[in-house]
Amino acid sequence: MASTITLTTDFGLQDHYVSVLKAVILGISPESRIIDISHQIPPQDIMAGAWVVRNSAMLFPKNSVHVVVVDPGVGTDRKPIALKINDQYFVGPDNGIFSLIGDKYDYEAVELTNKKLWLDDVSKTFHGRDIFAPVAAHLAKGVPLSDLGEALDQLSTYRWATPISDKDGIQGWIVHIDGYGNLISNIPQEMVQKAGDPENFRVYVGNTILNGLVTTFGSVPEGEPATYIGSSGMLEIAINKGNAREMLGVEKGAQLSLVIQK
Amino acid sequence: MASTITLTTDFGLQDHYVSVLKAVILGISPESRIIDISHQIPPQDIMAGAWVVRNSAMLFPKNSVHVVVVDPGVGTDRKPIALKINDQYFVGPDNGIFSLIGDKYDYEAVELTNKKLWLDDVSKTFHGRDIFAPVAAHLAKGVPLSDLGEALDQLSTYRWATPISDKDGIQGWIVHIDGYGNLISNIPQEMVQKAGDPENFRVYVGNTILNGLVTTFGSVPEGEPATYIGSSGMLEIAINKGNAREMLGVEKGAQLSLVIQK
Amino acid sequence: MASTITLTTDFGLQDHYVSVLKAVILGISPESRIIDISHQIPPQDIMAGAWVVRNSAMLFPKNSVHVVVVDPGVGTDRKPIALKINDQYFVGPDNGIFSLIGDKYDYEAVELTNKKLWLDDVSKTFHGRDIFAPVAAHLAKGVPLSDLGEALDQLSTYRWATPISDKDGIQGWIVHIDGYGNLISNIPQEMVQKAGDPENFRVYVGNTILNGLVTTFGSVPEGEPATYIGSSGMLEIAINKGNAREMLGVEKGAQLSLVIQK
Repeated sequence: MASTITLTTDFGLQDHYVSVLKAVILGISPESRIIDISHQIPPQDIMAGAWVVRNSAMLFPKNSVHVVVVDPGVGTDRKPIALKINDQYFVGPDNGIFSLIGDKYDYEAVELTNKKLWLDDVSKTFHGRDIFAPVAAHLAKGVPLSDLGEALDQLSTYRWATPISDKDGIQGWIVHIDGYGNLISNIPQEMVQKAGDPENFRVYVGNTILNGLVTTFGSVPEGEPATYIGSSGMLEIAINKGNAREMLGVEKGAQLSLVIQK
Repeated sequence: MASTITLTTDFGLQDHYVSVLKAVILGISPESRIIDISHQIPPQDIMAGAWVVRNSAMLFPKNSVHVVVVDPGVGTDRKPIALKINDQYFVGPDNGIFSLIGDKYDYEAVELTNKKLWLDDVSKTFHGRDIFAPVAAHLAKGVPLSDLGEALDQLSTYRWATPISDKDGIQGWIVHIDGYGNLISNIPQEMVQKAGDPENFRVYVGNTILNGLVTTFGSVPEGEPATYIGSSGMLEIAINKGNAREMLGVEKGAQLSLVIQK
Repeated sequence: MASTITLTTDFGLQDHYVSVLKAVILGISPESRIIDISHQIPPQDIMAGAWVVRNSAMLFPKNSVHVVVVDPGVGTDRKPIALKINDQYFVGPDNGIFSLIGDKYDYEAVELTNKKLWLDDVSKTFHGRDIFAPVAAHLAKGVPLSDLGEALDQLSTYRWATPISDKDGIQGWIVHIDGYGNLISNIPQEMVQKAGDPENFRVYVGNTILNGLVTTFGSVPEGEPATYIGSSGMLEIAINKGNAREMLGVEKGAQLSLVIQK
């Protein structure tokens, strides 16, 4: 049986673009199961796409192929690539979209140069249809990574903000805000644990100061903010039964400081 | 073949949450077909979720498993449960999300306590991934309801508004507004039929008064409001080629009165 | 194996309507693969639906069945129909939704009159569930087009704007704006090519004047507008890393003039 193929794009669901990817895939690999991860990555927001890929792809069954198309540079000289990470495959543009997953895991990468696996006429504006979807379908049918093109040593990486830790605390940033308005930072659980007893933490974000950590936002009174380790393993801030983005007036990119009280 | 599994959540489609449920399901029950019912239940709106479940689940093929996750109380002491209603299965939190379907049908319920069927590490904030998705996948593969946990006599119920009928007419509420802006009340067709000749009805909602009933909104002039029995078997109000919510200024929870003219 | 069935509607994803179509289809043709094309056609926007159908349907595998429900006239006297175009099938209302694809290809059409293939109780407001979904499922299982009803000679057509070409240039209209805000005109590539050397083109839309054609929006500086032939084979205008609809203040229906400089 052909492998599962997932789709992550910023195409939205109002247009025909997503369905065209599916049609191309089914034409080449009719037995593949197609799973939508998200088509509502904010337009051209590579950072948001990289976050979604990092948090979902590695959970899929062995040999799944992940097509990721957030591609503001389509038609310019950014490279079309494919990756293998453990038992998962990835196809998309080399524009930083694979930064977060490439930082976390070892990868094997190729630049897509074997045009025999593409559609016959490649447009300048829709490589999802013309290159990435057909290549993914061939991968799903068992074509090996090495047949897709030339080996590539190094991915392009986005300059992601990295949290800074010292004896006084941790400086991080809000890298994602989810559909509930929960603020997700780039500070991982391990860094928080090394910082000592959560009773001594004071967290500053926007104009809000929070004390300590809770295990879940449901454990504070309704309408109150809470700091906790979220399901992605990152320090998060949420409002119980409320929207933290709106109620705290915090946007993506905002600074977050965890200060250790002495 | 493993059963169909449907998903109804308030996760939205911008984040990775829905795809994580799918990955977990496919890891346990790779043969299951996964059908999205909705991921755009308004955040934490249990009433809206209960409405969607009531109107869709019972139509699915025998032995389908419905995962329903609108779960503002995740991580608190609300119980994770599973239900069997006729030949359909349901998995989700016991927070009222199954109120409408549990009122309409006889059910067999269990509290989920058999942790062998969950993921190994259960988070405080993502029971969809850690409990509900894996339990649904096991149900789809044929694990019997009684293996999931202890029998539960009574579901938690939300205090839903019930329509009141007397000789002068019917008092009801707008319980749902769909994507077209159509206003859907909690007054069922049977109650309307018992109220006599529709020629004598006057319907009040917001600042609008409507006379009689029509068979469909398409039978009134464009831009005009119409009262009719909708496809869910409830009294509805719509504007032909317009948005009743916006044009009549009516929101969910508004009162609707059907008065019998003498 | 039963055929693939695609769904294109204006139902949105917040309600239960889409899932009801899926449940009905699976009840009749449990082996069919169901592919969502779009459920976010703007409410009752037949032109937008026709555009999406024209750009996606013909790419699907042989014998796919396309259910298209943008149906403001449901319950009135517009006809329910089915079409065969090459090796693809279509089911929906005869309200112009098949105008664009019917203009481009030869079709065989029938009015749906064989009620044995419908659900037992047909509502006045939800023909997607009661007529179109069950008919599509029967087509997917191999029921021939001629069994669905009486032959129909001519589709209802929407009065679509057609571009006008003369020696001075081309007058066209913006017929679609996609999720990125790209402005898509009704001027096809062939008409542009006949107009001569792109170096001599000046394009007027809203208050903006553009010179020449580029191969892709990625080849102009960030924030600048570009005119190019898009992936649908139509003249388009986009802003590199920006939203042309917002930045140029242009809406669907706006005029676009291509003037040939002498």
